[in-house]
Amino acid sequence: MKLLITGGGGFLGARLARTLLQRGHLAGQDIAQIVLTDQVSAPADLLVDGRITQRTGPLLAQCAGLREEAFDGVFHLASAVSGECELDFELGMRSNLDSTRALLDALRQSGQTHGKTTRLVFSSSVAVFGPDPSMPMPARVADDTLPAPQSSYGVQKLICEHLVSDYTRKGFIDGRAARLMTVTVRPGKPNGAASSFFSGIIREPLAGIEALCPVDAQVSHPMASPSKTVEGLIAVFEASREAFGGRLALNLPALNVRVCDMLDALEEVAGSAVRARVVFKRDERIAGMVANWPAGASSVRAGRIGLVPDASFVDIVRQYIDDCRQSSSAGDALKGLAQ
Amino acid sequence: MKLLITGGGGFLGARLARTLLQRGHLAGQDIAQIVLTDQVSAPADLLVDGRITQRTGPLLAQCAGLREEAFDGVFHLASAVSGECELDFELGMRSNLDSTRALLDALRQSGQTHGKTTRLVFSSSVAVFGPDPSMPMPARVADDTLPAPQSSYGVQKLICEHLVSDYTRKGFIDGRAARLMTVTVRPGKPNGAASSFFSGIIREPLAGIEALCPVDAQVSHPMASPSKTVEGLIAVFEASREAFGGRLALNLPALNVRVCDMLDALEEVAGSAVRARVVFKRDERIAGMVANWPAGASSVRAGRIGLVPDASFVDIVRQYIDDCRQSSSAGDALKGLAQ
Repeated sequence: MKLLITGGGGFLGARLARTLLQRGHLAGQDIAQIVLTDQVSAPADLLVDGRITQRTGPLLAQCAGLREEAFDGVFHLASAVSGECELDFELGMRSNLDSTRALLDALRQSGQTHGKTTRLVFSSSVAVFGPDPSMPMPARVADDTLPAPQSSYGVQKLICEHLVSDYTRKGFIDGRAARLMTVTVRPGKPNGAASSFFSGIIREPLAGIEALCPVDAQVSHPMASPSKTVEGLIAVFEASREAFGGRLALNLPALNVRVCDMLDALEEVAGSAVRARVVFKRDERIAGMVANWPAGASSVRAGRIGLVPDASFVDIVRQYIDDCRQSSSAGDALKGLAQ
Repeated sequence: MKLLITGGGGFLGARLARTLLQRGHLAGQDIAQIVLTDQVSAPADLLVDGRITQRTGPLLAQCAGLREEAFDGVFHLASAVSGECELDFELGMRSNLDSTRALLDALRQSGQTHGKTTRLVFSSSVAVFGPDPSMPMPARVADDTLPAPQSSYGVQKLICEHLVSDYTRKGFIDGRAARLMTVTVRPGKPNGAASSFFSGIIREPLAGIEALCPVDAQVSHPMASPSKTVEGLIAVFEASREAFGGRLALNLPALNVRVCDMLDALEEVAGSAVRARVVFKRDERIAGMVANWPAGASSVRAGRIGLVPDASFVDIVRQYIDDCRQSSSAGDALKGLAQ
């Protein structure tokens, strides 16, 4: 089978590609080719695999070409992140809304040409939820909680959920939207996501660098490790339509933790000197956005297809350290960790 | 003040314009000019009023010009209807989604140029609601019921609700989305809306014509008269943001009635010979769509700004007959009514 991963050069897309290559199959079929589209180049370890084809450039510009091509499955992860969408409205509308619509139209066209219905997993986000003056937000947002997004990013994700649903109802694609929880710990540099600090307060101290936490220690948030997130995307792809249960988006599993719980876990794994590198310095812009995010999430439908949250934040910290040790950058990334 | 009514040549837009001209003011300001945009020409009685300016042609093509213009208020009613959106997917996406986005962008631009935030009322629809396999639909959909649209029309309306909300949050416009119930009795010919028969089974018998009812007599649906609908649009425009209560769309008031209740009301007003002109002939396409529509709706938020449903369907039938008698076409429209 031939797969497409949009955003395939990014952290999550590359990890998904790596996992798929290791498995070698998806939904009962052998994986012959994975096309990665992204603005940035994919990691070198992927590019040496003969099954990987890379195409760099904006997704929107690539969609016309995709119309001619037959894919058996698509993971649509490409997205501008929340912070940049809030700063640059047009960027978000173009990168998230227009690109998704162009992709769906390309798959519709390609499906008609090749007589198949392409299966697609769309990575939506817990950012679709928020409080509206007309409606308080529950402590844990559920699959069927009314979305009231409080950011352009969240609005764009919600709109795309409904486009995926309607293109599916019409038989143009076989689409499934899964809401990702905040993926922690992301490696590398801070990105433009307002949630970037959730990774930073673990990653930076482990690298021996001071990290600023822009919100209070009591702030709670639904999290998932990279491996659980990738596992969720694959399970949603492989689920039958009946098992997926409807056309509305589902929540991927979340570990609901407070910042202080995260730091306790960091201390348990890495010691008090590492934890002490986290400095609380309130950032009103970030704190204001986070105040409108859910404190937790539930995932009943994901549970029905066998998905469970990370067992603890200690596990998430250990997963990050193990990942670093397996990569070439382990030295720098774990410089702050007493060996 | 200068107002814009998109879809101003249509039944509801023209009625809104007529009501606004009669009032002479809106939200405490005198109405100096009303621009009507539509694909069709507005009724002659409107065009003779010096305050009316008409522009015919697709809204999408007109939006570039609207960028230069300063409006104090906009009622955005222009829309392709549910039946035609289901038959022609591209038409719905262009007429409902692209046109709304172009309008919002034009108002944003014009607002920046002229230093004002244009108030806009968007006519959404009860068609945003539906049952999803993952979630049953309540007997009465409420303001905060999770929308699960089962038609492209409903999806497009829901997407536009969220665009209006986000453009409002960003301060580009002061937008409010109100979900219209099925407006009954519409005069004239059947239109492409799948709900068209709800008017037809009252209008045609009164005109002495046999009407086919494509659904069972027990089918229940949330309705509103034209005058209550126009009253609702005006009240939503005039509401303070606090009174409107948030940025999510609200339900306009509904009279929840069954087809048999409607026919009982017709008989009470017009006699059994008129009622006997309604023939039940099931249409699977229409019945299938209607089965996915709400059986009723509640409207708590609309109640807070003073809006109430029609008192009875007898009132709705009488309103239609009174309207016909005041128009030049009374003879034909009421030909079936014993005088």
